[in-house]
Amino acid sequence: MRDALLQRARELDAADPLAGFRDRFMLPDGVIYLDGNSLGALPKETPSRLECVIRGEWGEGLIRSWNSADWIGMTRSIGAKIAPLVGANPNEVIACDSTSVNLFKLIAAALEMRPGRKVILSEPGNFPTDLYMIAGLERQGLAQRRLADRGKLAEALDADVALLLLTHVHYKTGEMHDMAALTKAAHDAGALVLWDLSHSGGALPVDLNACEADFAVGCGYKYLNGGPGAPAYAFVAERHHEAVHQPLTGWFGHEVPFAFSDDYSPAPGIDRLQCGTPPILGLAALEVGVDLVAEIGVDRLARKSRALSEFFLEVLGEWGLDLELVSPLDSAARGSQLSFRHPEAYAICQALIGRGVIGDFRDPDILRLGFAPAYLRFEDMAEAARHLVEVHANGEWQNPEFNQRAAVT
Amino acid sequence: MRDALLQRARELDAADPLAGFRDRFMLPDGVIYLDGNSLGALPKETPSRLECVIRGEWGEGLIRSWNSADWIGMTRSIGAKIAPLVGANPNEVIACDSTSVNLFKLIAAALEMRPGRKVILSEPGNFPTDLYMIAGLERQGLAQRRLADRGKLAEALDADVALLLLTHVHYKTGEMHDMAALTKAAHDAGALVLWDLSHSGGALPVDLNACEADFAVGCGYKYLNGGPGAPAYAFVAERHHEAVHQPLTGWFGHEVPFAFSDDYSPAPGIDRLQCGTPPILGLAALEVGVDLVAEIGVDRLARKSRALSEFFLEVLGEWGLDLELVSPLDSAARGSQLSFRHPEAYAICQALIGRGVIGDFRDPDILRLGFAPAYLRFEDMAEAARHLVEVHANGEWQNPEFNQRAAVT
Repeated sequence: MRDALLQRARELDAADPLAGFRDRFMLPDGVIYLDGNSLGALPKETPSRLECVIRGEWGEGLIRSWNSADWIGMTRSIGAKIAPLVGANPNEVIACDSTSVNLFKLIAAALEMRPGRKVILSEPGNFPTDLYMIAGLERQGLAQRRLADRGKLAEALDADVALLLLTHVHYKTGEMHDMAALTKAAHDAGALVLWDLSHSGGALPVDLNACEADFAVGCGYKYLNGGPGAPAYAFVAERHHEAVHQPLTGWFGHEVPFAFSDDYSPAPGIDRLQCGTPPILGLAALEVGVDLVAEIGVDRLARKSRALSEFFLEVLGEWGLDLELVSPLDSAARGSQLSFRHPEAYAICQALIGRGVIGDFRDPDILRLGFAPAYLRFEDMAEAARHLVEVHANGEWQNPEFNQRAAVT
Repeated sequence: MRDALLQRARELDAADPLAGFRDRFMLPDGVIYLDGNSLGALPKETPSRLECVIRGEWGEGLIRSWNSADWIGMTRSIGAKIAPLVGANPNEVIACDSTSVNLFKLIAAALEMRPGRKVILSEPGNFPTDLYMIAGLERQGLAQRRLADRGKLAEALDADVALLLLTHVHYKTGEMHDMAALTKAAHDAGALVLWDLSHSGGALPVDLNACEADFAVGCGYKYLNGGPGAPAYAFVAERHHEAVHQPLTGWFGHEVPFAFSDDYSPAPGIDRLQCGTPPILGLAALEVGVDLVAEIGVDRLARKSRALSEFFLEVLGEWGLDLELVSPLDSAARGSQLSFRHPEAYAICQALIGRGVIGDFRDPDILRLGFAPAYLRFEDMAEAARHLVEVHANGEWQNPEFNQRAAVT
């Protein structure tokens, strides 16, 4: 059976138009990496690009590289490259700070744009940092958090809601929100919308402007392959550019940063989303990842992502393993991942890692397998599914070493 | 005369206990770099360290490196290495975000710790981002900015002041505040103090705890040689650890980030200053720079810094050039820089750059020369001073090409 499935997988790989891109990433031997949705793999071009930035631009160019290597323009130019991946115009996206910091900026900006409304509406179980960033503003007395289950969001949108804040694809289950419908519902209630694209940007088609989204943020180190803790990005629809005032008013968001005036005056356009001096090494690595995703193309990535996860489920079915799938069964309704619920999910995840299949565990009982389509093969699906079947059949999770929890899981 | 001065300089270099450290930095040929206070030079070890982090930890280790390479601990462990450089305990400093973002966190935290007081007191002409970060909180209705000239700060400290926010060494003039006296004055008025160490940390002795400072922030890319836009650091005195609540409540500041709970609960201690996922590439580069500064030793750096700037002034004097010095004449009262006022400062700076002497210009009329003691020689002082003399004597600033303003100056 293993051979027959591998045979089928290899036929699919042979027909895969993206197969050649796998070689553009560095992947360790003996590893099937199903955690690109947590940290994207390393593009082979990244080390030489960083070497050039470090030795050439920093070492040789020194302070002059702010101009000569256009360090000063990187937040904008990389933002402009991310923009078409998420359905935005080039002047609507900027690469800066972390996702968390960008959330704070835009939640605060929304509160100011909707005076008299203090409620930030989200759903329980949203990615923690999205919920936590509301907490800081709540403590400042400026916001009030309201959570409603996803089926009840529309009815929770009343005249107190300043902002609807949701993650487009759920980090744990992979469920995808209907961005257009929810954005419209929020607008109908007089609220703004902020989409967190961390689990969709770069893997799935996102069309912020077609959905008339107001704000968005997204992560640089997952499907954009920007490296651990890469700079994030933020989107503000052009119609809001003059009205947006975010409170992290650092010198790089100033209209004329190098005038060194005592008074803050925001830059026109998306630049006012910037705060401090941009992190050049991180931005350079992010740019390589973004360029590669743009070259492959989000539509092709999304098609392959669906095909990979469908094939994975098919293989599990052929082996007769019936796990509780918490992701939507319809591949068009989910992100680039499959999540299974199991009381021993932690130990199963560890047992898989012991076999070279790296997925991840999400508290309390979710085994999450991500299918980064840029570098995974159908063969990886066949083998990863077989390992999961064997771990399950052998009860390998009972091995006590697989129950030692590490700091990050 | 040039020969005699060079001769003296080389004797000083021969006797310099730090002379050997110059070789630990990569410095371009034909350049005398007097802008280490804007962007520190590249330590030779940095490229190989980054290569190892990128290829080994990211490429091979992938997501596992959060544990196996202790990425998860880097903000704390690098903070602990910075701590002794600024007179703090290892558990009082964390490396994260930008200086601007860290200013926001601590200004907001101070406002909450001093209910009923809204004034943030600073001085006009402080580094812009320090003043601008107050503006964001002002716009949120939480703060009120008050500026007083440095001679009048003590009398401006009334019962409305929540926080005194000052840069220890002035970015433009190099003037140094009396940290102990001003901290005491603020405390006597019931206010807290936040010191920006961007132009002193790593170059001069700073003793936050001996001065009973409450908070501090500092820059990673100047005297700490962490690379362009390196992560910054933040200090909170241990006595405030439980009382500090900063509003950028991201998941990395949570008590148990990987419990993925819906509700924010701050980590104990300095960890609650963290916000989003830490930038590993930037932190790795910063660590190399910090290790090198720690190896050389701040006291030795400060001694050499004073000797360098004194020698520079001596050489200018021997050449008979009398420029208006805006830095204190007493080397113990200034940072590691000399700033001169001249109506043609911009063009003089450009003419010097044309001769390979990289200093910088600060609007509207300041020529700022920084003396990073880790990698500069007395010979560089003699030659840089001679170039300045010649630029001045020849009126080289009249060359129109030296008056084209670039984006970053």
